[in-house]
Amino acid sequence: MMNKEQYMASLQKLHPIIYCNGKRIENVVEDPMTRPHVNSAAMTYELACDPAYENLMTATSSLTGKKINRFTHLHQSAEDLVKKVKMLRMIAQKTGTCFQRCVGLDAMNATYIVTHKIDRECGTNYHERFTNFMKYVQENDFMVAGSMTDPKGDRSKKPGDQVDPDLYVHIVEKKKDGIIVRGAKAHQTGMVNSHMMLILPTTNLGKNDKDYAVACAIPVDAEGVTHIFGRQTNDTRRLEGDIDTGNSEYAIVGGETLTVMDNVFVPWEHVFMCGEYQYAQEYVEKFASYHRQNYGGCKVGVADVIIGATATMAEYNGCPKASHIKDKIIEMIHMQETMYNCSLGCSYEGTKTEAGTYYVNTLLANTVKLNCTRYMYEISRLAHDIAGGFIATLPYEKDLKNRITGPLIKKYFAANPNVTTENRIRMARLLENMTGGTALAESMHGAGSPQAMRIMLYRETNIEGKKKMAKQLAKIKED
Amino acid sequence: MMNKEQYMASLQKLHPIIYCNGKRIENVVEDPMTRPHVNSAAMTYELACDPAYENLMTATSSLTGKKINRFTHLHQSAEDLVKKVKMLRMIAQKTGTCFQRCVGLDAMNATYIVTHKIDRECGTNYHERFTNFMKYVQENDFMVAGSMTDPKGDRSKKPGDQVDPDLYVHIVEKKKDGIIVRGAKAHQTGMVNSHMMLILPTTNLGKNDKDYAVACAIPVDAEGVTHIFGRQTNDTRRLEGDIDTGNSEYAIVGGETLTVMDNVFVPWEHVFMCGEYQYAQEYVEKFASYHRQNYGGCKVGVADVIIGATATMAEYNGCPKASHIKDKIIEMIHMQETMYNCSLGCSYEGTKTEAGTYYVNTLLANTVKLNCTRYMYEISRLAHDIAGGFIATLPYEKDLKNRITGPLIKKYFAANPNVTTENRIRMARLLENMTGGTALAESMHGAGSPQAMRIMLYRETNIEGKKKMAKQLAKIKED
Amino acid sequence: MMNKEQYMASLQKLHPIIYCNGKRIENVVEDPMTRPHVNSAAMTYELACDPAYENLMTATSSLTGKKINRFTHLHQSAEDLVKKVKMLRMIAQKTGTCFQRCVGLDAMNATYIVTHKIDRECGTNYHERFTNFMKYVQENDFMVAGSMTDPKGDRSKKPGDQVDPDLYVHIVEKKKDGIIVRGAKAHQTGMVNSHMMLILPTTNLGKNDKDYAVACAIPVDAEGVTHIFGRQTNDTRRLEGDIDTGNSEYAIVGGETLTVMDNVFVPWEHVFMCGEYQYAQEYVEKFASYHRQNYGGCKVGVADVIIGATATMAEYNGCPKASHIKDKIIEMIHMQETMYNCSLGCSYEGTKTEAGTYYVNTLLANTVKLNCTRYMYEISRLAHDIAGGFIATLPYEKDLKNRITGPLIKKYFAANPNVTTENRIRMARLLENMTGGTALAESMHGAGSPQAMRIMLYRETNIEGKKKMAKQLAKIKED
Amino acid sequence: MMNKEQYMASLQKLHPIIYCNGKRIENVVEDPMTRPHVNSAAMTYELACDPAYENLMTATSSLTGKKINRFTHLHQSAEDLVKKVKMLRMIAQKTGTCFQRCVGLDAMNATYIVTHKIDRECGTNYHERFTNFMKYVQENDFMVAGSMTDPKGDRSKKPGDQVDPDLYVHIVEKKKDGIIVRGAKAHQTGMVNSHMMLILPTTNLGKNDKDYAVACAIPVDAEGVTHIFGRQTNDTRRLEGDIDTGNSEYAIVGGETLTVMDNVFVPWEHVFMCGEYQYAQEYVEKFASYHRQNYGGCKVGVADVIIGATATMAEYNGCPKASHIKDKIIEMIHMQETMYNCSLGCSYEGTKTEAGTYYVNTLLANTVKLNCTRYMYEISRLAHDIAGGFIATLPYEKDLKNRITGPLIKKYFAANPNVTTENRIRMARLLENMTGGTALAESMHGAGSPQAMRIMLYRETNIEGKKKMAKQLAKIKED
Repeated sequence: MMNKEQYMASLQKLHPIIYCNGKRIENVVEDPMTRPHVNSAAMTYELACDPAYENLMTATSSLTGKKINRFTHLHQSAEDLVKKVKMLRMIAQKTGTCFQRCVGLDAMNATYIVTHKIDRECGTNYHERFTNFMKYVQENDFMVAGSMTDPKGDRSKKPGDQVDPDLYVHIVEKKKDGIIVRGAKAHQTGMVNSHMMLILPTTNLGKNDKDYAVACAIPVDAEGVTHIFGRQTNDTRRLEGDIDTGNSEYAIVGGETLTVMDNVFVPWEHVFMCGEYQYAQEYVEKFASYHRQNYGGCKVGVADVIIGATATMAEYNGCPKASHIKDKIIEMIHMQETMYNCSLGCSYEGTKTEAGTYYVNTLLANTVKLNCTRYMYEISRLAHDIAGGFIATLPYEKDLKNRITGPLIKKYFAANPNVTTENRIRMARLLENMTGGTALAESMHGAGSPQAMRIMLYRETNIEGKKKMAKQLAKIKED
Repeated sequence: MMNKEQYMASLQKLHPIIYCNGKRIENVVEDPMTRPHVNSAAMTYELACDPAYENLMTATSSLTGKKINRFTHLHQSAEDLVKKVKMLRMIAQKTGTCFQRCVGLDAMNATYIVTHKIDRECGTNYHERFTNFMKYVQENDFMVAGSMTDPKGDRSKKPGDQVDPDLYVHIVEKKKDGIIVRGAKAHQTGMVNSHMMLILPTTNLGKNDKDYAVACAIPVDAEGVTHIFGRQTNDTRRLEGDIDTGNSEYAIVGGETLTVMDNVFVPWEHVFMCGEYQYAQEYVEKFASYHRQNYGGCKVGVADVIIGATATMAEYNGCPKASHIKDKIIEMIHMQETMYNCSLGCSYEGTKTEAGTYYVNTLLANTVKLNCTRYMYEISRLAHDIAGGFIATLPYEKDLKNRITGPLIKKYFAANPNVTTENRIRMARLLENMTGGTALAESMHGAGSPQAMRIMLYRETNIEGKKKMAKQLAKIKED
Repeated sequence: MMNKEQYMASLQKLHPIIYCNGKRIENVVEDPMTRPHVNSAAMTYELACDPAYENLMTATSSLTGKKINRFTHLHQSAEDLVKKVKMLRMIAQKTGTCFQRCVGLDAMNATYIVTHKIDRECGTNYHERFTNFMKYVQENDFMVAGSMTDPKGDRSKKPGDQVDPDLYVHIVEKKKDGIIVRGAKAHQTGMVNSHMMLILPTTNLGKNDKDYAVACAIPVDAEGVTHIFGRQTNDTRRLEGDIDTGNSEYAIVGGETLTVMDNVFVPWEHVFMCGEYQYAQEYVEKFASYHRQNYGGCKVGVADVIIGATATMAEYNGCPKASHIKDKIIEMIHMQETMYNCSLGCSYEGTKTEAGTYYVNTLLANTVKLNCTRYMYEISRLAHDIAGGFIATLPYEKDLKNRITGPLIKKYFAANPNVTTENRIRMARLLENMTGGTALAESMHGAGSPQAMRIMLYRETNIEGKKKMAKQLAKIKED
Repeated sequence: MMNKEQYMASLQKLHPIIYCNGKRIENVVEDPMTRPHVNSAAMTYELACDPAYENLMTATSSLTGKKINRFTHLHQSAEDLVKKVKMLRMIAQKTGTCFQRCVGLDAMNATYIVTHKIDRECGTNYHERFTNFMKYVQENDFMVAGSMTDPKGDRSKKPGDQVDPDLYVHIVEKKKDGIIVRGAKAHQTGMVNSHMMLILPTTNLGKNDKDYAVACAIPVDAEGVTHIFGRQTNDTRRLEGDIDTGNSEYAIVGGETLTVMDNVFVPWEHVFMCGEYQYAQEYVEKFASYHRQNYGGCKVGVADVIIGATATMAEYNGCPKASHIKDKIIEMIHMQETMYNCSLGCSYEGTKTEAGTYYVNTLLANTVKLNCTRYMYEISRLAHDIAGGFIATLPYEKDLKNRITGPLIKKYFAANPNVTTENRIRMARLLENMTGGTALAESMHGAGSPQAMRIMLYRETNIEGKKKMAKQLAKIKED
């Protein structure tokens, strides 16, 4: 396992092409725009080396028997699924934001199951290849970006029917030693500070979409790969100082890219699906359900910080005992613990797959994320309510530090006499940044949009069974 | 273990004094007002004898090693807690209503833990007595009514400060061979068809409330006990026929009594707390949390039936495919599975007590019931929405069967040509009765009112810990 | 104008055929099942004769210049529309329930507008006929049942495509002196204690539905008319006493019938539409919008009573000052006043029609009712929350009056020492009955189901206009 | 009346001291940080000179009989109150944001009423002074900043009990020719581009707070006044280009300042309250209710743009017809029109004050804003849902324009083939910025925080009257 420093050093050996705000980022570890994202991900390395967190952060490899970082682990039990959730909540309490590494973890676990099935049914040897890849990842303690979401182009058309064939990643050519792929993946969390990306399909595919049925692993700095870093709410504040950005150490959300693959070569040993379109749907569902499970972990940890910041703001404002404030904080707790509870439930109800690993309960996992798409907004709303109008009109950090305006701000934004105005502003800025724009949108669309969960909830429910129960009680006889 | 018939026979050997609608009920098994409630409870006996349900319905006694009905079981593992939830959902799918027996189960498990603690700290021998009582219950497969809720009188006063000392059950006299208790318990679910009741305190107590710190077991037909059966929405419809009552076989809710104890004698062997007021709060919380856990089981089973009835109504009305109807049904599923998921989560997270049995996660168990107080109303609202105005204006069963009006009703309330009007009406009546009045109020107040959960959620949360997390990220240093 | 006594006397001169619970009701005024409904409607007569309410309850006829009951008025100004809302709220505060007479008022106003349009475009003389009918209604101060909702049969088929042609009211024959109609109207509020019914179509119609385009007035006791009275939650409690029924004087909801017309003859002077199918949609929308406007009046008055009962229960229970209770009551107030506010808004924004009368703002009127379908459930939920579990388990009135159980109930259900137990029970029963079953379903489906409002909201919105605004600000130029 | 150009020119004649991001802003009209805010306010001048909007935008002065900008008008009728709401919605449709000028309008109308009352009861001559001030404002068509919110310091203490006496604006000295005031006002909307500010108290005051009972008018560039401009979500994006900022022309919210008054002299003719603490509460309530009325105008106009942008995004993404998308848009419409409806209702119900002007219905006005604190969040949530994850990860404007990355972005973020990628990004950026951070917080706290409305709702409700209604129906007699 790597520690934090080793992880950072390892990133500096890579040379991905990353654009951000019109310029190339040469060093993701040092660049102020990406550094906080690196710090978040680094937490997954740091804590794994801390004996206090060994139980949650590490596991014993089912492939090598060695102690590994849990983020490279293939789940061997329902308990492993539960530990994932608890680990995610715990790390998020320390970063207050996305630490990115679960996407790859979920992609790897989904791939392990699906390659096993394809091989069994089609006689291919993807599973063996992938098992070797997993060993390689575990041994190097790589951070792997799970790369699923294609740009999708015209939503009313399937991949093979798009005017521009590149709007979903596809196989351009099969060669003796590997394949050439082309296209892009959007919304790629953690990509700029990963070592590898694991490509998988984004939707169910039909016969005409055969070339789009591709799964493979690619180094982030492979030839032909270009990353364009997305912008987030208030992101450039971090160029100005450490207060206004709120969570200056770890940023607010994951840091996503549009990652373009312009005829990238992938050797066969890193190809895990190549044309078996009929497995795309299961692949997507497996990955999505694993990933939806997470939101009752990481977002609940984020909510821990939001609730803590809110309770602190009430105190800093001088009104921590007001009954309506306590009531709103209870409501926030109720929502976060409902999400957490759902994540635990769907994990404990996980079952063994034919590949030998464990998979969450699909129906229950989808409730987790659907709750999240509502509750994180509601938690943010209540946080705003308690924090006060202050969070919308705070002066600039530079004005706080200015010789003339600084003393005025300190004088006039003082509240609770035991708290410095700077601390009050710091807490307000943390809250402002954790509850706005990109952070909310991420709670909505990460791991799939609400409608995707709703479709799954219906599909996984036995409606006919429920009808029978009702007819039985209503004493209805039908032929 | 008793089967259904043995259970009914055993009830007929008891002679409790029960009043209902101005008259005594002489035979709870045969009386049309109580029969459906007996039927529901009987399901807990019937299924326990059915090999298909053995896994959920039975357990191995930790006291005797014998196979017992799970409703008399002391939970030996988190798995046992989970099985309780799954059992409750499964039975509710078959009864569509409360089957009452979980209250005693929860009271017994709470008493087992608390007596163990009192003995350890006070040198009493309640735990041994209670263990013997448990063996007696298990061997006779008794249905035990968990008797907690006192009438409470003036809510602004503690038990010992009430003008009328009887508004909480209390010890009137300690005698050589036992104690005399006096008072009443309200909202007693399943009382009229139980064998015994297990009295426990209803609130935390202070020094002045010593006489109110009493736990004991009393036969339902002990001398001095009078039961007054409460009325429910549309209950007398069952005297008119089987359609309008909806769920004619099993009723809609539990069937509650006001049970008065007028100087009832209890022998020492059935006394499990006698003055140790300082344990009342823990006792209440243990019972309440066990009981709140249940609502993601039984109410979810009830919701299965409501959803099934709603989907059937959409079909019977001729519009099962409308997108807004499907969307509402998905919302109903989302809510029920969230409740279920929460019940599973708090169960799996259960931990071993010092008494050796397992207890749910308190914080998480309280989210279950708080969700229930909202979701069952919302599920009912959506059911009304889909079912149509029809459920509010349906004609009487006697008019359906009347020579003149029957044909008119059948002609004009016909909808989907493949369904008889009577079946359409049956389903509407089931839905009407499952989603109104008493059924909703039970979802609100059973196992405690919402405010009780909110207080627990706050008490069980580490707010200071959350504040620290926020301060860490906001880089706030305080002295 | 008739007073209360005259109204009751006038009903006794009619001889409608009404079935209820397997028997004919011979005298709607005296029969205990219908008497409370008569009392509610009578309030519209009583208050009109009370000088204190003259401003709201009466108007000056635009047809005769005489002072008339506002329930027979053709709205002459936006102020008239506002007065309707205020009148409805005021009466509901006194009855706590539906007083039924607004349906006819809305049907008459819709008919006045639509007949004017048909005549203008088709050269018919319906408007003159209808104007004469209105004079007749005003002079006799009739209660007119607005009869819109057909049974509808198979929801996937239009009227003319149903297997049974009678599932929508239709013209069977046109004769020299009038027409013969056949079919039924369902959910007919106030029918049994009205003088006349005003038939109008229930849905938009196509060419094949010509015979279904019929509007006409029929006496409730015309030959061939049979009324079947629907049952409501807890309705037979009124046969047992006056406590358990809650609002014993005025019932809980409107009292609906299935009204069957078996070849009923209607003279031409009472026929107001006869085949002009292309006006059916506008007719329906006009009526529906007028009727949806009302729900922020009458239901808000009902909510006044529910809130008053809830606040009283808090006091009777002994905890009126708890902050969470006050907070919930505020929430109830917020919801009711939002509904009221919306009703006022859509009324004041009413505009003059070509017929010279005033019509509400359609878009805004639809928000009123859509809010109502949610808020009345939520208000009821909060009422249950505050009232306590008590409302679900109260003993029977006969037990309260029983020699043995009466004293026990009085002793043990005592709470606030300044309040008798009977009064506490009375208030709980009022609340129970106002917040359950039929009352809720009526808030959902009266004046149309939620989906109907949603369709109207979309149709009445200028989405293209909104898109343009957004494009303007985003500086998007399109060709 | 001034037109847009005259307004801008008039601002350039003033020389307020404004700090922003560590520097002074010398020219608010030209500075890129303030220019968009000036543009929004300028719209109130531009439209007033446009004959197409004359009816809404102008009024006849009650003081001079001249045609004036409605933003300087004293409301002479309920119709005037309604026109205010309609004007606000209309302007917001054109700016997509706050145009700031209503605060002064509301402050002036509140002051007019309260000075009238003080004079009548205390024999002062504030009202005459203020009337003269109003003429001066109307004649010069000034933009007046309504300055209410003091920094408040320790929320648990009244103004006179604060450790630092300056945390509420107060009178430092009374001189022959005027008074000296000291303190600050926070969250001052539109201050930097106003001509004058009108100071009024922020809370009810007691005897000890006499010096805090001060109302007066001060030029924004008076000696001793310093403005510190607050920062908003994504505000510095406007320094980078015109796409990422979304609404580049008019910004997203109002542009607030902390305005410090360091011993500022005010001549007596501009002092409108000076020590009459007992009128502070009414003053606050009048201003607040006028201001809460507005949110169903301006925010509904903002919602028009958000809904338009959302519907456009659905189209640009290629899925405008999905039933769940249409359903969500309907929900957004329902919420906005409910707010609008409430604003209209409380306006039409406005009544004449003793000063002769019109004032909104207080109870109803408070529902408007309380709905707004929830609905704007919910509307934003639904907008995010429909827009897609895209809005959280869009690349920077500079990358879109970059030679290398621009073509990649255009290729891969193409969707609907009829729409350019740049337009798709423009619309997404508009939506992102209108639905995040500061914009939401403004909907929450502008015109007061939710708890303030709740207190008013309770105070304005006749709870005892409601209780009586319930007792009447439950047939409860009390002595």
